[in-house]
Amino acid sequence: MIGVDWGTTSFRAFRIALDGTIRDRRAGMRGLVNVPDARFGDTLRDEIGPWLAAGENHVLLSGMIGSRQGWKEAPYLPCPAGAPQVAAALVEIEFDWAQVKLVPGLSATDEAGVAEVMRGEETQVFGVLEAMGGSGLACLPGTHSKWVRVEDSRITGFTTHMTGEAFGALRGHTILGRMMREGPSNGAPFDAGVRRSGDPGGLLHHIFGARALVLAGSLAETDAAAYLSGILVGHEVRAALAAQQGTVVHVIGVPDLTALYARAISANGGFPERHDGEAAARGLALIGERAAWN
Amino acid sequence: MIGVDWGTTSFRAFRIALDGTIRDRRAGMRGLVNVPDARFGDTLRDEIGPWLAAGENHVLLSGMIGSRQGWKEAPYLPCPAGAPQVAAALVEIEFDWAQVKLVPGLSATDEAGVAEVMRGEETQVFGVLEAMGGSGLACLPGTHSKWVRVEDSRITGFTTHMTGEAFGALRGHTILGRMMREGPSNGAPFDAGVRRSGDPGGLLHHIFGARALVLAGSLAETDAAAYLSGILVGHEVRAALAAQQGTVVHVIGVPDLTALYARAISANGGFPERHDGEAAARGLALIGERAAWN
Repeated sequence: MIGVDWGTTSFRAFRIALDGTIRDRRAGMRGLVNVPDARFGDTLRDEIGPWLAAGENHVLLSGMIGSRQGWKEAPYLPCPAGAPQVAAALVEIEFDWAQVKLVPGLSATDEAGVAEVMRGEETQVFGVLEAMGGSGLACLPGTHSKWVRVEDSRITGFTTHMTGEAFGALRGHTILGRMMREGPSNGAPFDAGVRRSGDPGGLLHHIFGARALVLAGSLAETDAAAYLSGILVGHEVRAALAAQQGTVVHVIGVPDLTALYARAISANGGFPERHDGEAAARGLALIGERAAWN
Repeated sequence: MIGVDWGTTSFRAFRIALDGTIRDRRAGMRGLVNVPDARFGDTLRDEIGPWLAAGENHVLLSGMIGSRQGWKEAPYLPCPAGAPQVAAALVEIEFDWAQVKLVPGLSATDEAGVAEVMRGEETQVFGVLEAMGGSGLACLPGTHSKWVRVEDSRITGFTTHMTGEAFGALRGHTILGRMMREGPSNGAPFDAGVRRSGDPGGLLHHIFGARALVLAGSLAETDAAAYLSGILVGHEVRAALAAQQGTVVHVIGVPDLTALYARAISANGGFPERHDGEAAARGLALIGERAAWN
């Protein structure tokens, strides 16, 4: 089968053997926003044409491609939901060269009854179910980080943190950005920001302090962005791990980002276990196995 | 005497009688950023010329006019400091038509040793010392909100929260702003945001929820900005009041803003007492009385 993790900005396709091993892969920036005139079918054919020609006929798509802004809307499936429930709710889409199905996103509500939705992350979490032993906590860092709870191989709930996007807005459009210069995103200043997030005063106080530290000469301009990032990630991790210290957290994503989150999770009493983006391929395979293909 | 609260964007001058009553006032947008070519002397003469002609000879300036970006830098005075200490540290400035002195800003460090500075707010706090009975907590909401601790008529410390500026960056430059339309800044949605700040999950989770509520139709687009504002102000107030419930908080500023903060303070177990911007005039009078004029 062919599995595609098709997001807002990126496109990653995998040719997957019956035993789940990845036989081939493609990745690029042909995410939703980079597909002109919503020509999703043509884009898909461009990308996976050779695999179709080689005889593949089952194509499973996950991610924002199943949103209202995507190819066709696949309604959210409410939690709790596991791979069998998701496989039973796939949405078929018209495509002349193969059978194509869309993975629906999941919906949930947090403790206060506020709605949560995700598209694509559920598939990545299914890809690490085995490593999780079917239960536990997963974290998918990014523009809108997700923390996903799993019990008995089903996703029972999740929460979103606007960490990545808030970081961009604060760096790009406040007084903080004006004193920042390019520098490494990892290391001691990030860790200092994570520690800072545990001090009294709250997030809105801590971020302002970044400026004071630079003005006082105790934080280099090239380290200020990493420090700000540490404060925000630290606040996210502290809130997400609240009362769950000692938990193993399965962190899924690109290595640069999972490395940072692993540091922040360790600093807050959690035990990080890192997984790369191939989790999406394993999740697509898991759902694809259970799908009703013609 | 003449007292001027001269900030980054605004200019407010008061002609003050010997008994402290305000005889006349001027206000406008001739703050630092709106004074071309740093012609501060000319601007001051334009604004208060008639009062000088009427015989006033003592002019006291507070605010960012005493910063490196202002007319002349008045070095920060470390906390604790009261009006007598500030009056003894005024910085004289060259001006042909009157004797002009600058109020220095104050510096402090928070519990974690991070530096804090302010310019102008100290003068406003001195203006409410009498109402405070010489001790207590003051809050000056704004782009960079200040929470100021006072003991024995001296400012002992303070913390800054980047609430107003963070609100602007989030509204203007994230996914949250794209679903917001102009609406009232007060009322039920603000209060709902304040309540939301007390839920589990943390600030970065709560702000993302604003979008979900709008998408679900349970928050109007015209109410979303007020709700976001309530979340941020709620987080600020909760952090600043932590372990100090039942405290009277003297809120100083423009009525629209102090009204909002008063609601958030009440909702978090504090007792707000509101003061308007005339606090600056009273503070300038208090310092001016103690200054060594020729």
